[in-house]
Amino acid sequence: MLETIDTSKKVDKEAYKEWLPRLKTDLRELQQKVREAGIPVLVIFEGLDTSGKGDSIRHLSEVLDPRGFRVHVAYETTEDERKRPWLWRYWVNTPARGRISFCERFWYYRLLNERIDGLVEKEEWSHAYQDINQTEEMLHEDGALIVKFWLHISRKEQKKRLKAAENDPFLRYTVTKREWGRHKKYEEFIAAAEEMLERTSTHISPWHIVEANDRRYRRMRVLQHLCEEIANALNRQERRKKVGEVKNGYVSVPVLEEMPTLLDKVDLTKKLDEEEYQKRKVEGQVRLHGLQIEAVKRGVSSMVVYQGWDAAGKGGNIRRLTATLDPRFYSVIPISKPTDEELSHHYLWRFWNHVPPVGHMTIFDRSHYGRVMVERIEGFCTEADWRRAYQEINEFEMQLYRAGIAIVKFFIHITPEEQLRRFESRQNDPNKAWKMTDEDWRNREKWDQYRESIDEMIQRTSTTYAPWTIIEGNDKRFARVKGIEVVCKTLEEALERKAAQKGKSSSGKSKN
Amino acid sequence: MLETIDTSKKVDKEAYKEWLPRLKTDLRELQQKVREAGIPVLVIFEGLDTSGKGDSIRHLSEVLDPRGFRVHVAYETTEDERKRPWLWRYWVNTPARGRISFCERFWYYRLLNERIDGLVEKEEWSHAYQDINQTEEMLHEDGALIVKFWLHISRKEQKKRLKAAENDPFLRYTVTKREWGRHKKYEEFIAAAEEMLERTSTHISPWHIVEANDRRYRRMRVLQHLCEEIANALNRQERRKKVGEVKNGYVSVPVLEEMPTLLDKVDLTKKLDEEEYQKRKVEGQVRLHGLQIEAVKRGVSSMVVYQGWDAAGKGGNIRRLTATLDPRFYSVIPISKPTDEELSHHYLWRFWNHVPPVGHMTIFDRSHYGRVMVERIEGFCTEADWRRAYQEINEFEMQLYRAGIAIVKFFIHITPEEQLRRFESRQNDPNKAWKMTDEDWRNREKWDQYRESIDEMIQRTSTTYAPWTIIEGNDKRFARVKGIEVVCKTLEEALERKAAQKGKSSSGKSKN
Repeated sequence: MLETIDTSKKVDKEAYKEWLPRLKTDLRELQQKVREAGIPVLVIFEGLDTSGKGDSIRHLSEVLDPRGFRVHVAYETTEDERKRPWLWRYWVNTPARGRISFCERFWYYRLLNERIDGLVEKEEWSHAYQDINQTEEMLHEDGALIVKFWLHISRKEQKKRLKAAENDPFLRYTVTKREWGRHKKYEEFIAAAEEMLERTSTHISPWHIVEANDRRYRRMRVLQHLCEEIANALNRQERRKKVGEVKNGYVSVPVLEEMPTLLDKVDLTKKLDEEEYQKRKVEGQVRLHGLQIEAVKRGVSSMVVYQGWDAAGKGGNIRRLTATLDPRFYSVIPISKPTDEELSHHYLWRFWNHVPPVGHMTIFDRSHYGRVMVERIEGFCTEADWRRAYQEINEFEMQLYRAGIAIVKFFIHITPEEQLRRFESRQNDPNKAWKMTDEDWRNREKWDQYRESIDEMIQRTSTTYAPWTIIEGNDKRFARVKGIEVVCKTLEEALERKAAQKGKSSSGKSKN
Repeated sequence: MLETIDTSKKVDKEAYKEWLPRLKTDLRELQQKVREAGIPVLVIFEGLDTSGKGDSIRHLSEVLDPRGFRVHVAYETTEDERKRPWLWRYWVNTPARGRISFCERFWYYRLLNERIDGLVEKEEWSHAYQDINQTEEMLHEDGALIVKFWLHISRKEQKKRLKAAENDPFLRYTVTKREWGRHKKYEEFIAAAEEMLERTSTHISPWHIVEANDRRYRRMRVLQHLCEEIANALNRQERRKKVGEVKNGYVSVPVLEEMPTLLDKVDLTKKLDEEEYQKRKVEGQVRLHGLQIEAVKRGVSSMVVYQGWDAAGKGGNIRRLTATLDPRFYSVIPISKPTDEELSHHYLWRFWNHVPPVGHMTIFDRSHYGRVMVERIEGFCTEADWRRAYQEINEFEMQLYRAGIAIVKFFIHITPEEQLRRFESRQNDPNKAWKMTDEDWRNREKWDQYRESIDEMIQRTSTTYAPWTIIEGNDKRFARVKGIEVVCKTLEEALERKAAQKGKSSSGKSKN
């Protein structure tokens, strides 16, 4: 998930001065309502050293009524704490009803610092995922709100901050060998964080990843997410009775809503000329055909998901991908409105039905991601449904991955201008006019809603085992070649993984 | 959990003839309502070979409208299935809305037969717990009802049935070397089943353990549980709108409700004479004192829970237990009404606060089990709350156990007559009259409700890592000695476990 994060996001001084006081006023009001409603609120900050966990807590403390919150910092475990059940020191510090706890690290301390510093054995930290998820569920069922922030800074930024702290007589003590040691292990730390975010982002308490290179941006984003989460919790049916409906205006900050999303950073000027296109396309198709034969022989299955704007070129892309493939070993599954039978099952049921048989490739033209796009936007499922879906989809894909299925997920991106051009050209072409419906025009009007949903979808479901690839789609030639090449690369990796596993499991068996 | 099961339960022919048709009528009516309400119902049968899974499904099939249900039997995995994600073949067979699926084994096949027969590697079946729990949660959130039956027969009964089948020309084919092989591994099979029941009994779909030596009893109990679960599901708020409230009478079968509970089988005539009492008490106390010193030295903590009827003798028992102990290393925590501060936290918070420090013993006079007894009966929490609590308590105790804490749980049982005798003698004794309140008399009137709650509590929370011990309490001398001796034995085992772990972890470390 972290590779999708843009740490360059910034808020300028004027916007900060204008909006910060309003967010503070909102949070103060919400704190009163939390007390009236009797919701215990647990706010957890995690992130690299110097990412701003302490500053975030200090900043929130200044805003709030001190009678309503407590601060908890996870320091190194004492001898006594180490001999108790590891969650003990956190359990006894869970917030009372109507109160807020701001916590640095909290039980995630075990999954990052204790793990990286080698203070706990693998058996201990690897069991902590389940312990934490169980505990967060218990508190949630008891009415608690759990808000989790991952503050993300780049390696470069961390180095800069550690140096600056060393040169500051008041902060010098905070930078020891240990901090520099962890900085050197940046990649390892981020990999552990990635695993933590994947395994503990539940629908009960998903992580909020906040870009933290810019202090103003980080502070405002934290305040905004926190207000939003509290307002949502207050608006849940049971609570509403006590405090009345909470206005949505609390959480709307134009300067944050207009921030560039993942898609905005995509370089849509990328293109290929006809000659290079033909050359690379044919090379890729030949390579892919060879890989398909290997995959069939060695039983490596794969799933390729195509998502994208209307007219982004999914169909053309899929045709080029499959041009040289043996049709006995792949299927293209177009996903449109569910049938009655499909509707009468869990939404994932239709996708389970199309899980590839051994050695096969299943290509989805649209997919289970409809749950968090069209179903979310058109209200075909409840808010609770699509919020839960990120976790369900990640679990589903993890099960496929563990069965050895290689997963490729494409989002083909184009500009709205390019879409309009294509729509008009379709309408004027008698051979293509049938492709256009009123729905395409209606969807186009919801561009901004989709943009936001896509951003959240990619962030929440881009995992180490099933990452998203955004395809720059304004130039069809570039898009098609990229699609073929990414599928080739993923299949090659899956074949290597399979070979490595075979080697391992047979050597493992010889041990017995 | 299985050690608490009484396979000798029987229903006679007359009661069967009287009640079976009524249960069938109920189920037929409920099937219609399931269809109207659009609930998908997944009914899973597990159990040893010959325990009656097939007969249960056949029997239910005869009752119901065949258009509304399907039957699914998990046979050996085909080559194709083995190469797909392992849950694939089950997912595609999940029931549609308004339909019922009766399944033999289903995804639990992996946790028992495939595990015991060595068809899957440990890594695979040990991951299946999480996969199954995730999937059952997904289906539950989608509105499905999942009902799970464990049909329990004794080793002796299984042998008898396998022999009988061998001698039956129509059934001979069902008994092969494999079945006899599994019979020989009865203990291993039951241990695996115990682990499965512990780890997949969630509040979403707890296992129903059904004593299955007697066919009539098993059939009626299955029907009754199934009706009850469907009626509960229909009565959940969202569904009620569609079909109106479902009468409770569906599920009330006197002959089943009057079945003896765990407590009824306790032999309350056990007693000790004064001489043996003094001898064993003093021996036990001396032994316990020695064990306490060892536990402190070697950092072995323990938690002793006392539950029991009013006037069962908890206090006297605790006094004898602690008579020779060094008071610096144990605490007795009496649990009565929660304070305001305790009420403002999760109900487990107060018990987390008293988790023993390293080497200490915490003795609870009443405990977190109040959740599933007094809070359940007096309505201090919702039905959803206490139903969820079995899982929460098991998870809590598992976390203590994994931190090396030895857990002893006593329920001191007396007859209602003995309680009355003690109440009256207390009231007549000016030194003890203060102990008696109106509440004691009110609780006494709810004896039957408590009896039922205690039975369910012991079944659902007696785990391999934290088993219940029922103490025969009519004779105070017997009860006190048994209490001391069980604590001694548990502490000895915990000290041995600690020594074994130390040996293991130090040898493990030398490998690195």
